Amino acid sequence: MLIALDAMGGDSAPRETVAGAVRAVTQPVPGVYADESLPDDFGVALVGDRAALEPLLDEMIAEAAAAGADADAVRARIIVEHASQVIGMSDSPVEGLKRYPDSSIARSVGLVAAGKAAAVVTAGNTGASVAATHQALGRIKGIRRPGIAVQLPSLGEKPALVVDVGATVKCQPIHLFHFGVMGHIFARSVMHIEKPRVGLLNIGEEDAKGNELVRATRDLFAESPLHFIGNIEGQDISRGKCDVVVCEGFVGNVVLKVSEGIAEFLTETLGKLGRELGSDSALALVKNLRERTDFSTYGGAILLGVSGTCIICHGRSDRRAIANAIFQALTHAHAQVTERITQGLSSDVPTGAR
Amino acid sequence: MLIALDAMGGDSAPRETVAGAVRAVTQPVPGVYADESLPDDFGVALVGDRAALEPLLDEMIAEAAAAGADADAVRARIIVEHASQVIGMSDSPVEGLKRYPDSSIARSVGLVAAGKAAAVVTAGNTGASVAATHQALGRIKGIRRPGIAVQLPSLGEKPALVVDVGATVKCQPIHLFHFGVMGHIFARSVMHIEKPRVGLLNIGEEDAKGNELVRATRDLFAESPLHFIGNIEGQDISRGKCDVVVCEGFVGNVVLKVSEGIAEFLTETLGKLGRELGSDSALALVKNLRERTDFSTYGGAILLGVSGTCIICHGRSDRRAIANAIFQALTHAHAQVTERITQGLSSDVPTGAR
Repeated sequence: MLIALDAMGGDSAPRETVAGAVRAVTQPVPGVYADESLPDDFGVALVGDRAALEPLLDEMIAEAAAAGADADAVRARIIVEHASQVIGMSDSPVEGLKRYPDSSIARSVGLVAAGKAAAVVTAGNTGASVAATHQALGRIKGIRRPGIAVQLPSLGEKPALVVDVGATVKCQPIHLFHFGVMGHIFARSVMHIEKPRVGLLNIGEEDAKGNELVRATRDLFAESPLHFIGNIEGQDISRGKCDVVVCEGFVGNVVLKVSEGIAEFLTETLGKLGRELGSDSALALVKNLRERTDFSTYGGAILLGVSGTCIICHGRSDRRAIANAIFQALTHAHAQVTERITQGLSSDVPTGAR
Repeated sequence: MLIALDAMGGDSAPRETVAGAVRAVTQPVPGVYADESLPDDFGVALVGDRAALEPLLDEMIAEAAAAGADADAVRARIIVEHASQVIGMSDSPVEGLKRYPDSSIARSVGLVAAGKAAAVVTAGNTGASVAATHQALGRIKGIRRPGIAVQLPSLGEKPALVVDVGATVKCQPIHLFHFGVMGHIFARSVMHIEKPRVGLLNIGEEDAKGNELVRATRDLFAESPLHFIGNIEGQDISRGKCDVVVCEGFVGNVVLKVSEGIAEFLTETLGKLGRELGSDSALALVKNLRERTDFSTYGGAILLGVSGTCIICHGRSDRRAIANAIFQALTHAHAQVTERITQGLSSDVPTGAR
């Protein structure tokens, strides 16, 4: 199984993307394969400027070899696929795709469309990644708009899956409903939650609260066979009140980034306090918390609703985040989430389209 | 200066509201008065069911006296104003105000309308508090919709003022623009920021990002004399990137509650870690962080755009939060924010109305 990595996407690309790929094919894959050894057919396609990528790849493999890895075995799992162009972080997605037909993201998605790769991983321009995947792979039949799902840490047993965090900025009720259906299927098949609780993000618990969009969406959920628990509020996400949190892309994107900001603020504040106290155990505590709340350890977000697997990473992803995202892509492809959504829409869960 | 307190509003009312009032008139007022002694004319009107309030008041004053306060002096600063009804947390604001004309919130606002009190403090139904204040005191001329402002902690020198966190759920560009103008004036007159940086909450920094609402609002700000720094993203709030964060009420409410949830999640996680480590200094650190991130210490939110001062507290406010909110109401009334907004709109800052 080959994973296509947009090697030019992200704030620290291509150094960190190449390092992430090497890390992914060097380390065992915890939780994905029972024996935690790498499957024979697992490999990564580094997509981007060959002249930039080859020397970095040599460097990273040499580093891995110095740490004890088998250089030939690592090298055998990585191919470089040339793409001459890059869509920048500030380029308009649609224009970028037109202007740069040989971009690393378009080429990466192309590998999936051609059946050569099982999934795409990118830390580049999110809008362009969504648009490229959408264009090349198409939408799952019955789904009107794609949604990006992220898992946010919670006090519950499992993280909370928030859909959408930015693929569909402006939504209609049916779009939100589809986010819930896809989140339900993802939570069942990948997160192994038997009966996922679906909640609608609102500004109060009562039915009458919120704007027209959430009120109309509420009715769609209430009539569906999903385990819909009704409105939830912002603080309920991290309290573990539900498994799937449904919201419009604009709101979800704000939720994601505010969470990140507050986590950063608290660990910074805590670090300062720890240094003031000068206590080793306090500093160890801060380090531990930082690890647990470092969003890069969570790997990427998953684009749901397109006919293929696309993992979207944080722009500032480091090698660890990229490697995690590659594992995530593997897990996702293995769990056949796209196939399950396609089946789910035609069987146990209605699309709500009418 | 008399502050009207809706003694029946909030999850822990009337016990915590009464205790908060007693605390406010017993403690010195830090930062408000130079000598930190209570001004002679400062008092609190407890508005609500007299039969419930009087015995609680006796109990709390006895407690304060046991701790060394002068019972007579405390008693002299508190009056009880009877109101026979209460609007519950789940009542519809507009219907609630119609059905319960003698509600504690309507009576509280009535004291301000009659010129008897300088400001209202409430931890009750937010929608009803906004509607009651709006109805009884009216809007500031030129302002089309009220906005609730809260100060969120940040890594910057001062907290970030977020407007609106729930007064106007659905906004037009001109409403957001007015939130920015009012936030600017508040930041100058109460937070003592010479030239407040105003940012528009969006899902990307680029001009083209976001939905129609933010794009149209951006143009209004760009043409104004405010120190507008453009789009900001969720993580920028706690990074201290700007002083005033402008957003639609729905989004702002989610921001506020997500921030609260993440702070809660991190302090919980940290507490667990500290107990596992069994380290005293680690636990001291957790306690310190909890104090700093406990939203009750921030007191209340400020309703901007109405012709009078109204401080809206968290439903779960305890006595300390109520006392803080009473001090806040004093500060706000002293700073003449309402008057300054009224003047500001007719002088240095244009309303943007056209």
